[in-house]
Amino acid sequence: MKDIEFFGNIKNCENFVNAVKEKDFLFSLVISYTSTSEIPGITIAGSNSELVKFTAPADAEFLHYGYCKSIKSIPMTPDGKPTPALITKSALESASIPLVVINAGSKVEPQLPFIQTGLKPGNNITQNFGLDEESFLHAIDYGRIIGRTLASLTDCLVIGESLPGGTTTALAVMRGLGIDAKVSSSIPKNPVELKNRIVTNALKKLDNDDPFNVVKAVGDPMIPTVAGMLSSASEISKVLLSGGTQMAAVLAFAKSIGYKSDNVAIGTTCYITNDTTANFLEIIKQIDDISILVVDPKLERSEFPGLKSFSEGFAKEGAGAGGSLIAAMLKAGLDSEKLLQLTENQYKRIFTSQ
Amino acid sequence: MKDIEFFGNIKNCENFVNAVKEKDFLFSLVISYTSTSEIPGITIAGSNSELVKFTAPADAEFLHYGYCKSIKSIPMTPDGKPTPALITKSALESASIPLVVINAGSKVEPQLPFIQTGLKPGNNITQNFGLDEESFLHAIDYGRIIGRTLASLTDCLVIGESLPGGTTTALAVMRGLGIDAKVSSSIPKNPVELKNRIVTNALKKLDNDDPFNVVKAVGDPMIPTVAGMLSSASEISKVLLSGGTQMAAVLAFAKSIGYKSDNVAIGTTCYITNDTTANFLEIIKQIDDISILVVDPKLERSEFPGLKSFSEGFAKEGAGAGGSLIAAMLKAGLDSEKLLQLTENQYKRIFTSQ
Repeated sequence: MKDIEFFGNIKNCENFVNAVKEKDFLFSLVISYTSTSEIPGITIAGSNSELVKFTAPADAEFLHYGYCKSIKSIPMTPDGKPTPALITKSALESASIPLVVINAGSKVEPQLPFIQTGLKPGNNITQNFGLDEESFLHAIDYGRIIGRTLASLTDCLVIGESLPGGTTTALAVMRGLGIDAKVSSSIPKNPVELKNRIVTNALKKLDNDDPFNVVKAVGDPMIPTVAGMLSSASEISKVLLSGGTQMAAVLAFAKSIGYKSDNVAIGTTCYITNDTTANFLEIIKQIDDISILVVDPKLERSEFPGLKSFSEGFAKEGAGAGGSLIAAMLKAGLDSEKLLQLTENQYKRIFTSQ
Repeated sequence: MKDIEFFGNIKNCENFVNAVKEKDFLFSLVISYTSTSEIPGITIAGSNSELVKFTAPADAEFLHYGYCKSIKSIPMTPDGKPTPALITKSALESASIPLVVINAGSKVEPQLPFIQTGLKPGNNITQNFGLDEESFLHAIDYGRIIGRTLASLTDCLVIGESLPGGTTTALAVMRGLGIDAKVSSSIPKNPVELKNRIVTNALKKLDNDDPFNVVKAVGDPMIPTVAGMLSSASEISKVLLSGGTQMAAVLAFAKSIGYKSDNVAIGTTCYITNDTTANFLEIIKQIDDISILVVDPKLERSEFPGLKSFSEGFAKEGAGAGGSLIAAMLKAGLDSEKLLQLTENQYKRIFTSQ
């Protein structure tokens, strides 16, 4: 595949790609919330702090309907750069990949049929444990059930997430697990100082690196849910974890509950792997010898500044954008040029119809 | 298939069966509620009237876990005859058919991951409209979305329901649509008088037979939801409506929103078609020239009175029992004898572990 680069376990990358080429894919979007996102400066996933709680359900609605119901516009940064769900939507549409939305603690319910877990939003990790014991175990249990069901309906389950502030909880979880992780963000001048301060502060309440304790103390509801999904789904089908540092945190935790690593790949954009404020490939290497598929969406070639900005470090990944591009390429043989064109059409449609 | 009899459009029955033989099936259980079930004497789906609201979620939990979470025992009639979900569970397990649960207005949420529609329970049709305008349209819309998604993940979508009191609303809907329907029930001495009185009474508020008005006035949330699912799913995959008179009401209403009839079959047990207090085959004939697949579960051969009672007119169908037996036969080549044995094992497991 000319537009997908292999990293990590290269041999497994080849096997993975060969096993799912032209096969059926199912895209699942796990939406969630952590009050950690309310810390000023942490996220720009939402044009103002009042809107952040709508970002995840609105991403889900956009993927589903092509427009949002919970908010008028699509989720954007304060200066008008659109959600990466725009890329995900084009990719899924172009290759007729079905979508299911899983509500794992979103503060607002999406206005579409979704898989309900009953999970509550996560707490601000600087003030509290991210998750109480019951929610944590519930998330893993329900994740396992959902993973088993979805994997039995496809050849390759793609798992993406939408969770504002999620890179901070991901960073905290990885640090808590002893992984030397720098972390990517939807903000181009990654607020490294702020995040490090929050994480260091949040980790003070931990007195050991037991993975269950770490995720409860400084994690969010998405991490144990997706880890549960990964654990059961990888026994049945291929699983493409679609995302950057947040999926790295999922993988890091999932090691403690188990998964079938031959069936697992992480798929993301080159904007994540090229991000020098983070160290994505090294993080994954520290966790497991696993397949990493990296796609170049070539958004720097776009005529639209709003799309070009992704390649310049804004919202480099999210809503499963990278993995959905990879899935579209593998299922339908599409290339970056074609997918860029479709994303531009999507962009034009949205910004001329509003 | 030696244990499946063809009725209705025989040619289409053959095509349907040949198209799905040894293919993938997905079983969906639509759980719902109507306050009509609170009328004394209407249903025995639940061992007392306080428990009736748990029947549908408990059926879902039993299919999923093999035991219930919302109630201690499995749903039963007041004299201890078990839910037909027992048969469904054996059939799905034996053929490794995956299950999804759709909550279309259950009064109690099931304790498992389920597809959430946001629908409210239906009203008592003798006191009120069964559904308000908004809920009715919402049910069709969401049904369509769910049907499209699920059908894209399988070769044959099986749709069952669990809705105590649902045969009464089904009867009212069919009568309102001008169909000469007598109706089956989970009670052996079918309380024909009571049902007729309720239906006649409920239909008084209708001044025309517009299908939308009829379902709003005297229907329940399951009917428009499953009609929506049928409508979109039948464009993509085969659809097996699994049930008796309630699925007849779905079909009767679905005619007004459209479906691809070549891809549709109704699947049920011979206890429904042999029920002389009802007229199932004639009802379907009045609605459409469609495939009807009828299975004989041979429960009269069971050593257990609780299972034998199904063949004697108790809970002749429900929780998709008939369709799931048909699906297991078509997918995995199982016959009635083998499935009876598995159901007996299931029965033994439950009644010795409690």
